[in-house]
Amino acid sequence: MPLWDGRFGEAPADDMVAFSTSLDIDLQMWPEDITGSRAHVAGLSAAGLITHAEAATLLAGLDQVAEELRSGSYTPGAELEDVHMAVEARLIEIVGDVGGKLHTARSRNDQVATDVRLWMRTRLVALRAALADLVAALLERVERDGDTLIPGFTHLQRGQPILLGHHLLAHAWPAQRDAQRITDALRRLDACPLGAGAMAGTPLGIDRHVTARALGFSAPVPNAMDAVAARDHELEAASACAIAMVHLSRQAEELVLWSTTEFGLVRLGEAYATGSSIMPQKRNPDAPELVRGKAGRVVGALNALLVMVKGLPLAYNRDLQEDREALFDAVQTTTASARIMAGVWRTLTVHRDRYETALQGDFLLATELADFLVLRGIPFRTAHHVSGRIVAWCEEQGGDLSLLTAERLTEFHPLLGADTLAWLDPRAAAQRRTSLGGTAGARVQEQVDSLRNWLSSEA
Amino acid sequence: MPLWDGRFGEAPADDMVAFSTSLDIDLQMWPEDITGSRAHVAGLSAAGLITHAEAATLLAGLDQVAEELRSGSYTPGAELEDVHMAVEARLIEIVGDVGGKLHTARSRNDQVATDVRLWMRTRLVALRAALADLVAALLERVERDGDTLIPGFTHLQRGQPILLGHHLLAHAWPAQRDAQRITDALRRLDACPLGAGAMAGTPLGIDRHVTARALGFSAPVPNAMDAVAARDHELEAASACAIAMVHLSRQAEELVLWSTTEFGLVRLGEAYATGSSIMPQKRNPDAPELVRGKAGRVVGALNALLVMVKGLPLAYNRDLQEDREALFDAVQTTTASARIMAGVWRTLTVHRDRYETALQGDFLLATELADFLVLRGIPFRTAHHVSGRIVAWCEEQGGDLSLLTAERLTEFHPLLGADTLAWLDPRAAAQRRTSLGGTAGARVQEQVDSLRNWLSSEA
Amino acid sequence: MPLWDGRFGEAPADDMVAFSTSLDIDLQMWPEDITGSRAHVAGLSAAGLITHAEAATLLAGLDQVAEELRSGSYTPGAELEDVHMAVEARLIEIVGDVGGKLHTARSRNDQVATDVRLWMRTRLVALRAALADLVAALLERVERDGDTLIPGFTHLQRGQPILLGHHLLAHAWPAQRDAQRITDALRRLDACPLGAGAMAGTPLGIDRHVTARALGFSAPVPNAMDAVAARDHELEAASACAIAMVHLSRQAEELVLWSTTEFGLVRLGEAYATGSSIMPQKRNPDAPELVRGKAGRVVGALNALLVMVKGLPLAYNRDLQEDREALFDAVQTTTASARIMAGVWRTLTVHRDRYETALQGDFLLATELADFLVLRGIPFRTAHHVSGRIVAWCEEQGGDLSLLTAERLTEFHPLLGADTLAWLDPRAAAQRRTSLGGTAGARVQEQVDSLRNWLSSEA
Amino acid sequence: MPLWDGRFGEAPADDMVAFSTSLDIDLQMWPEDITGSRAHVAGLSAAGLITHAEAATLLAGLDQVAEELRSGSYTPGAELEDVHMAVEARLIEIVGDVGGKLHTARSRNDQVATDVRLWMRTRLVALRAALADLVAALLERVERDGDTLIPGFTHLQRGQPILLGHHLLAHAWPAQRDAQRITDALRRLDACPLGAGAMAGTPLGIDRHVTARALGFSAPVPNAMDAVAARDHELEAASACAIAMVHLSRQAEELVLWSTTEFGLVRLGEAYATGSSIMPQKRNPDAPELVRGKAGRVVGALNALLVMVKGLPLAYNRDLQEDREALFDAVQTTTASARIMAGVWRTLTVHRDRYETALQGDFLLATELADFLVLRGIPFRTAHHVSGRIVAWCEEQGGDLSLLTAERLTEFHPLLGADTLAWLDPRAAAQRRTSLGGTAGARVQEQVDSLRNWLSSEA
Repeated sequence: MPLWDGRFGEAPADDMVAFSTSLDIDLQMWPEDITGSRAHVAGLSAAGLITHAEAATLLAGLDQVAEELRSGSYTPGAELEDVHMAVEARLIEIVGDVGGKLHTARSRNDQVATDVRLWMRTRLVALRAALADLVAALLERVERDGDTLIPGFTHLQRGQPILLGHHLLAHAWPAQRDAQRITDALRRLDACPLGAGAMAGTPLGIDRHVTARALGFSAPVPNAMDAVAARDHELEAASACAIAMVHLSRQAEELVLWSTTEFGLVRLGEAYATGSSIMPQKRNPDAPELVRGKAGRVVGALNALLVMVKGLPLAYNRDLQEDREALFDAVQTTTASARIMAGVWRTLTVHRDRYETALQGDFLLATELADFLVLRGIPFRTAHHVSGRIVAWCEEQGGDLSLLTAERLTEFHPLLGADTLAWLDPRAAAQRRTSLGGTAGARVQEQVDSLRNWLSSEA
Repeated sequence: MPLWDGRFGEAPADDMVAFSTSLDIDLQMWPEDITGSRAHVAGLSAAGLITHAEAATLLAGLDQVAEELRSGSYTPGAELEDVHMAVEARLIEIVGDVGGKLHTARSRNDQVATDVRLWMRTRLVALRAALADLVAALLERVERDGDTLIPGFTHLQRGQPILLGHHLLAHAWPAQRDAQRITDALRRLDACPLGAGAMAGTPLGIDRHVTARALGFSAPVPNAMDAVAARDHELEAASACAIAMVHLSRQAEELVLWSTTEFGLVRLGEAYATGSSIMPQKRNPDAPELVRGKAGRVVGALNALLVMVKGLPLAYNRDLQEDREALFDAVQTTTASARIMAGVWRTLTVHRDRYETALQGDFLLATELADFLVLRGIPFRTAHHVSGRIVAWCEEQGGDLSLLTAERLTEFHPLLGADTLAWLDPRAAAQRRTSLGGTAGARVQEQVDSLRNWLSSEA
Repeated sequence: MPLWDGRFGEAPADDMVAFSTSLDIDLQMWPEDITGSRAHVAGLSAAGLITHAEAATLLAGLDQVAEELRSGSYTPGAELEDVHMAVEARLIEIVGDVGGKLHTARSRNDQVATDVRLWMRTRLVALRAALADLVAALLERVERDGDTLIPGFTHLQRGQPILLGHHLLAHAWPAQRDAQRITDALRRLDACPLGAGAMAGTPLGIDRHVTARALGFSAPVPNAMDAVAARDHELEAASACAIAMVHLSRQAEELVLWSTTEFGLVRLGEAYATGSSIMPQKRNPDAPELVRGKAGRVVGALNALLVMVKGLPLAYNRDLQEDREALFDAVQTTTASARIMAGVWRTLTVHRDRYETALQGDFLLATELADFLVLRGIPFRTAHHVSGRIVAWCEEQGGDLSLLTAERLTEFHPLLGADTLAWLDPRAAAQRRTSLGGTAGARVQEQVDSLRNWLSSEA
Repeated sequence: MPLWDGRFGEAPADDMVAFSTSLDIDLQMWPEDITGSRAHVAGLSAAGLITHAEAATLLAGLDQVAEELRSGSYTPGAELEDVHMAVEARLIEIVGDVGGKLHTARSRNDQVATDVRLWMRTRLVALRAALADLVAALLERVERDGDTLIPGFTHLQRGQPILLGHHLLAHAWPAQRDAQRITDALRRLDACPLGAGAMAGTPLGIDRHVTARALGFSAPVPNAMDAVAARDHELEAASACAIAMVHLSRQAEELVLWSTTEFGLVRLGEAYATGSSIMPQKRNPDAPELVRGKAGRVVGALNALLVMVKGLPLAYNRDLQEDREALFDAVQTTTASARIMAGVWRTLTVHRDRYETALQGDFLLATELADFLVLRGIPFRTAHHVSGRIVAWCEEQGGDLSLLTAERLTEFHPLLGADTLAWLDPRAAAQRRTSLGGTAGARVQEQVDSLRNWLSSEA
């Protein structure tokens, strides 16, 4: 029997009970609900709304409810609607009528808003740690295989020779920014809704600073209606998750590509790959594929949240009950995906020789030809044009830049010649790109140091 | 131990098991998996790949697995990855080595594709029925309260007087189209992937027509790679669900509005509304609010599916494992929402008198003034302008059209006068709109008859 | 000065004019608006609301407006708000007061609903033709290069040897279904809103069948409120576009992959690829990349439409003005993408020998080993296990299946031996898969014939 | 003729030119492109790659191109592909061969990345200002009409009496957070990609700090591949826009509701409302409706961006060309919507008396009954139950709380009586809610002061 049954004569329709319960999703918030209620007891007591003895009774009762939920000895039914009712109903069974005082100066609106913020705080801290650990895993891989020569791709065409470390760092920096977005989201989350009541505040003398502090928030949310109606902290967290998943999906895509026979650059650890039910030779890159697929899931969850909140009048509307499923899934999926991807990076094998000779003479050195001329004063557009004609000629011959001799080069441009041939070594080409952020080894190391510093400051 | 363990030396990482299992979601497809396997046994037997005795053993084994899953005596663990492995592993335990023949000429790729189509077929038929029943519920309401006079709104401003039946039918027709979209989706779904194998077909002499027929499909999917790679039947079904939910959300929005004190047009049945934990007088329109919120959820699910499949190369990729959660949720949420909304319409109370006198003199009759002049040969734009000036005048007086006298009217235009006043009755105005599809009672009845005919043909 | 200025004293704010105009997007509907107005003149005339002479004047005036818009001699300003006002205002300038009769028995609500349906009808027919032509382009490619041996991929790992034709058909069938979805959308679109007025119909004696027929619709929309409030035909069309774009993006992804140096299977025609501003050797697969990117755009457009309509009360709301931009973009982008992709398929070069020898001994033949045993009575799971062990052994030796001798094979299983080696030819393996929809050449040809028949019936 | 034409023999297909151009959208970035190029000239000059004279020539040439673009005397054709080519091609026409040196040590990849960041920086600063001004507009309205008594709604049911100022501030605080999210996005945007080249950096001795400073960035992006491949700054900005639009849509929804005849709380200024083409009395809340609709558009744009970037391998892919349309639209639509909404709030009229007497005796005072008992020591749940029974009784009588007499109250609970009747005044009830963030006037004023302080610090 719902706690709001003072007035209704008729029970909800059976299918309505199933349709409207949120217990299956929000029961996982019971620790936060208990924590929030404990703080509220402190607030009620400080305001003189309950005696010290009543406070002690309530706290003991809440401890028992927590213990029963932890051990599974209490499993609330769907008719209790949500975790708040589940906790309160059991509390009243345990402590009797005094349990009915707990909901004084409180509404489910500020209660759920508080619970969700508590839930988010813990999980976002964990997500940030998972993202930092992903950065660490990438740095470890850079330190192990960073000097492997590979083609840098644009349009998935070979563009210029680079070091693998340079490429991996281009995944590490976004992960750092993802972590920083979580930090920003946590900062904005740091305000306590408790005491806002249904939307108007309370006349009962509660000091919201007391409960905010008890729950580890810097301050109360400054407007009671905003406290219960706002969901932008959820939207912001889900956005940060979706962006992080987009980044993870880009890593995943590359790992799928690189572990094909055709690219042949990496081999995933067996812990993160699976076989086929029918093709025994397969080592399927399941972990990255799942991460890539789950990116769709998190983008969908963000979308669902935006759609739900769009156009809703203030303050609370029941639509908002649906927010938790999407929010929780987004945060948990992103955290799990970051962890899995860190494991993938730590356990794969790089075929370090894959491209070492394969890039000799490859057309991806064409830019080197242009740069060679530019350094000798030829305008870039002219140099680029010369380089293009050389590539076209080699292609016509059915070969690559290895066909070039000093004489042939000079025919294309008088400044080209024997020294150009030496210039066309792919590893040397990579090492020459010493501009800040360039692929040269020293530049890669600089970034590793910088990110290691950041990780130390985060830990 | 996975069934593809012939080659791998190392077990999956612990978190990878949790990350990659789909058992929690696809275990609900066990009946379809058993059904598909039974048909496959028939196919193997027809092709002479198993003996009749082996077929009998396999069928009996499958029956036992089904019974164990139904009763809950067999609960597969996450290490079994998915429902296919769960069924097959248990089958082999029961019937021994012959169980290993079941997966002959089959791959998990065509197997899951078949299971999902079977799952969808049943659920889409149920969804279509739920949508048809929603049409029926709306028609019942039209028949009960359809002659209630209300304002037709545009921009949520009162526009013209209409009958409630006219308005309700504007929800019924979209629901009919939603049902028809499901019919189209079912038609395109009607092709059997079984026998496609991993993506290339099989050399083992399976007759795919046999298994297609056994499973109630009209034909096999004509290309084996398409059979395992395609997900557009899921995207189409999810789209149809999202569109239906958008329609349901529009009904929901109106029910929320109409049950406010301010609109005061309906009172929801207690079975579909709830009270407040703090404000005892509230009768919150929970059912419509939840439906409106769940529309966001289904839009998000469609979005997730589109994102997942976009840019995937053929044929199967593990990303696709994620499709079921979104698909199942979309279909089930839409079906439940349609059913709930039918219940809401059937149990609410219409305050039939709410607008009966309230619309007398209301500015929503201004169009009537214009029409009055048009019928007397005045160009519409002129008539519209006259009508606008009359409204402005009434507003300046602080009143409404009741202020008008025959004399005053004639001052605005010589063709206006005493007979105009009679013309300004809101109910008469509604009844005058007799063009096809207009709000006149006879036109409303015509539509009820037409939709009743459709319902009969559907049943 | 807006045509509804009879009552307002104050002009819209300057930024509001820019914010609220839809002229920039809906001016492209002027032919439809003129067409709709011409039909409405017929309706007014048939109802006796205008004389034959007035009808003739209006039609001539509309012709002149059309001519001025076509030639660009009339360019309406933003203060006219939308195409309907732009046409009507100019008409009144041309024909004088009688122009003010055109809007009799019509509202902008039914007018815009009609215009959009007319716009959609033409464009969806064109889109369907573009999709059919894409099927034709794929069939041409199958006929030219369909017998090229390639690996069939799952998880982007080589799975089984197949013919390119088999793979291309797995793109052709979805394109056919996409075309069929457009057909369904056109069928549901086929109802005329004109005459619905603002939402209640009209008392002025218009016969909506007359105007519906004049505009080529099968019938009027049966409910006037539904006629102006519904947008599901737009949502359905946008859904069909998004699904088609997902399919196109899958083709695009493969073309990007296949044109890498690593896969090296195709070379795009120069008409659909571009060079690099800095790397002269690049042949970037721009067309497929753009198609893949534009898939995101169309998914976003569908999403925007769903979000806009969700939760809107009936009937018209100004939010709906925003629908056209998303709808038009979705339809036009999808049509252009289908056409571009047909061009890409027609102009690329297949490197037919890329995989011919490369697949000899490749582990993708492992399934053949299993099938070999299965055909000799070994349970599939056992055969699969044997095959897995053989692959593992070859890998340990650092080689592939070419390492296998008859003797070595027999050691793994007594039924394996010399005849197994012959069985392991990849092209033979592909040709053996003769089940319906299998990769065998005859099965490929069957599908080509079937799709050619469909194309004939569409043309 | 594209600048990369050194090698290609064939021109792009006609439809491909139209399909692949981005000029229509990115030509609006010409000022940023010129600015970026000017900084690059400084970098080339500092690196000794061009002489001072060449630098002067290039700068003068760029000035001329800028002037021609500003005046419209130069209108580049679609064959120039994008703004970068358009500027460079015209520059070479003007200054001759030396113009070909401008693209030295630069790629379109880092160039476009720089241009977009410059574009975003200016526009996000403007967006933040628009959001701050929206806060100012809300505060002005609070100061003018903040003491108006209205019902606080939950589930759109009347919940508790509040002051309008309390409600409006619940819109102001989210707008402040929206502005702060923009600030965070600007902080993360503050790094310069120029000098990253195609993805590997450059060997040509460019000092990226020089160009970063010249463009007003704090530092260069630390990794050249990240510099050209990352789009999370766009995703973050679009997310912040989508969240802001969700907030604006909630304001919009309420303004639509409040300006209905039924709610009757506000009347929009004529500058932000329009009339009807057929119903002259209408004052349609167009501005809020459009804002609400445009929220869908921005959600769709964010979605499009997420879909585009998801799963893309590094570094640049042509898919990313599509990002600008969605990004620019999101930022511009959000800015315009915030400005429009500020105008709406400033120009509307509040019907201050609408609820002053209407709330006397209204059931929304039921919570007051419960609070009355709680303050006298009754457990909340009991008090809530009593209050519920009182409401039920009044409803049965067909009236509201005005039916209650002291005697009747005492029958429901002995602590209720004559003093309860005085307690039930709605304005007094609002003023009693003095907890931090409560609706009491002093609490409202506190928040106004706090937000005014923030505005001062922002200005």
